[in-house]
Amino acid sequence: MSLLKDFFLRSGINGFLVMNEFNVLYFTGFRVEHGRGRLLIPMDGEAAFYVYGVDYEAAKVEAKNCYVEVIKRGEDANRKIVERIMQLNIKSIGFDSLNSITYFKLNRALRGFCKLKPKPKLTWKLRIIKDEDELLLMRKAAEITSEGMKAAYDVLKPGMKEYEVAAEIEYAMRKRGSWGTSFETIVASGLRSAFPHGWCTDRKIEEGDLVVIDVGATYRFYRADMTRTLVAGEPSKKQELMLQEVVKAQEAAVKSAIAGAKAKEVDASAREVIKRAGLEEYFVHGLGHGIGLEVHEPPALSPESKDRLKAGNVITIEPGVYVVGFGGIRVEDVVLIRKKGAELLTHGPYALRIQT
Amino acid sequence: MSLLKDFFLRSGINGFLVMNEFNVLYFTGFRVEHGRGRLLIPMDGEAAFYVYGVDYEAAKVEAKNCYVEVIKRGEDANRKIVERIMQLNIKSIGFDSLNSITYFKLNRALRGFCKLKPKPKLTWKLRIIKDEDELLLMRKAAEITSEGMKAAYDVLKPGMKEYEVAAEIEYAMRKRGSWGTSFETIVASGLRSAFPHGWCTDRKIEEGDLVVIDVGATYRFYRADMTRTLVAGEPSKKQELMLQEVVKAQEAAVKSAIAGAKAKEVDASAREVIKRAGLEEYFVHGLGHGIGLEVHEPPALSPESKDRLKAGNVITIEPGVYVVGFGGIRVEDVVLIRKKGAELLTHGPYALRIQT
Repeated sequence: MSLLKDFFLRSGINGFLVMNEFNVLYFTGFRVEHGRGRLLIPMDGEAAFYVYGVDYEAAKVEAKNCYVEVIKRGEDANRKIVERIMQLNIKSIGFDSLNSITYFKLNRALRGFCKLKPKPKLTWKLRIIKDEDELLLMRKAAEITSEGMKAAYDVLKPGMKEYEVAAEIEYAMRKRGSWGTSFETIVASGLRSAFPHGWCTDRKIEEGDLVVIDVGATYRFYRADMTRTLVAGEPSKKQELMLQEVVKAQEAAVKSAIAGAKAKEVDASAREVIKRAGLEEYFVHGLGHGIGLEVHEPPALSPESKDRLKAGNVITIEPGVYVVGFGGIRVEDVVLIRKKGAELLTHGPYALRIQT
Repeated sequence: MSLLKDFFLRSGINGFLVMNEFNVLYFTGFRVEHGRGRLLIPMDGEAAFYVYGVDYEAAKVEAKNCYVEVIKRGEDANRKIVERIMQLNIKSIGFDSLNSITYFKLNRALRGFCKLKPKPKLTWKLRIIKDEDELLLMRKAAEITSEGMKAAYDVLKPGMKEYEVAAEIEYAMRKRGSWGTSFETIVASGLRSAFPHGWCTDRKIEEGDLVVIDVGATYRFYRADMTRTLVAGEPSKKQELMLQEVVKAQEAAVKSAIAGAKAKEVDASAREVIKRAGLEEYFVHGLGHGIGLEVHEPPALSPESKDRLKAGNVITIEPGVYVVGFGGIRVEDVVLIRKKGAELLTHGPYALRIQT
């Protein structure tokens, strides 16, 4: 939080209102549901954490770097914040995220006294670099995820339903200490594998189907994200060739992902491989994204990205090709950016074929 | 969607911009990630669904009630929407939810041509009443959830870690066809059970601990939500007495939850039981909430609620008492409001004691 305050002067603010639940979690270590916690960080003095009765006792015990105020039944949370801003004589306050209705309410109440300034990127300046404590948790999440993927290779058989595969993966991750999943597990088989975000249905997996499995464990609120593509049964020549290109694309990207590299150039290094294979039109998404408390964080790795990689970024590298009417192939790992290169945090084979 | 248009005239709009991913899902049946899909519904003519390349092919196959437009690399999604609004001569457009930054952008671009009006409650007028198709899916989600809770009774033993209990519950639900969990499973044991949203940690459950288990399966994007409180081993007299009061409170609420009832009176019927037991100060949250595509929907059941129950509402009824330093007890079921009473969709015993 003191690191955040270092940005106050440069940003022309002397206070910051945290509304996003992941920013709240980052600063306090306390998880509230969306919209149920607000953190007011003044330049001078202690941060105030406003929560409802349902979270009050837990927050008093668990929330760090702040004192906790309860929003009582019938009290107006915005009103309380406005009063505190005035009391502290905050003349210019930044915020991470407000919906338009709340913005108008606060702005009206503060008019002539305090300026309300959108600063959506401020907290990312901190969150984008993972410190050693965070990396410990992210390594653990990645390790559990790799074990979950191993379970997929162990159990996948033609005749299984997609959700049955998810059952085994998630069970394996939970048994190894997962606190939950980073996102809804994707097991997209057959023609559905050509849809990058295919979720998980009751479709029965058939012999020869491509099966894109995209899964992540959480550990103490930090997330991992890993994809492999398997074939139920014997892969075809074409499937094998496509996989090879996607794996080569990932390898090229991992090689180029070092501190100081432009994110769009890392994306380009993978896209170039796919292009040479004549598959460019089928690579329909960016190469990857930052990951941490949220599954999609900055930096963005895409042709349009203006980001530059820094040591301590944790990102995914996930090239994929999706051919409608044929199927899709994606491989993805979580990668820590270091000064001299990238370190893979998730691990596992790339083989399409399942050992039977 | 045609039902939504019936509200346009009354709301003084001739178009509606859907930004919230659950509203998008409701109208199109297509699930996009937060912020990745926008649906423009004009009074006259077909709705336009704007998605990125990553979702384009899937949306073309799966999205109903709309035509699909791709937002190409480098294109500005807001710009496309503004152009379409002008092309269709929409003079006043409602929206469900916009963050303040996007609001300013759209408002500036539309100035003098089209009014942008926040209508956050409009879609709830439809979503709050579940039709027969939705109820089929909600019944299935509730049934799977009840089976998951049964698994908790079967496996819970002193010495297990909280996440190990979650593993068994989620596995049981997945095996019965769950598409995922409605929210992060709560297994909060010992003193942590006094924290209503206690998540799930690596704490080892001890003999005599209260264990609050709050879990929900999803089925085809519809959600359930169910809580039971168990004791690992032999419950104490005090634990038993507290449970009885909470169960009585739930029964009173279920009895009063009929179409036409004021939500705050249903809350009061449960709160009254808890009050008579001298436990009122420990009931630190509202009685329940609507549930459907999201886990927390209107109507709200709380002392401050202005809602009135209607036939076709699906809600949770979940009284609880949380005594810091002792533990917490909550029971929760999903309930369908009918003209003449409430129908429980989740089912299971209330016993604290586990059969061993």
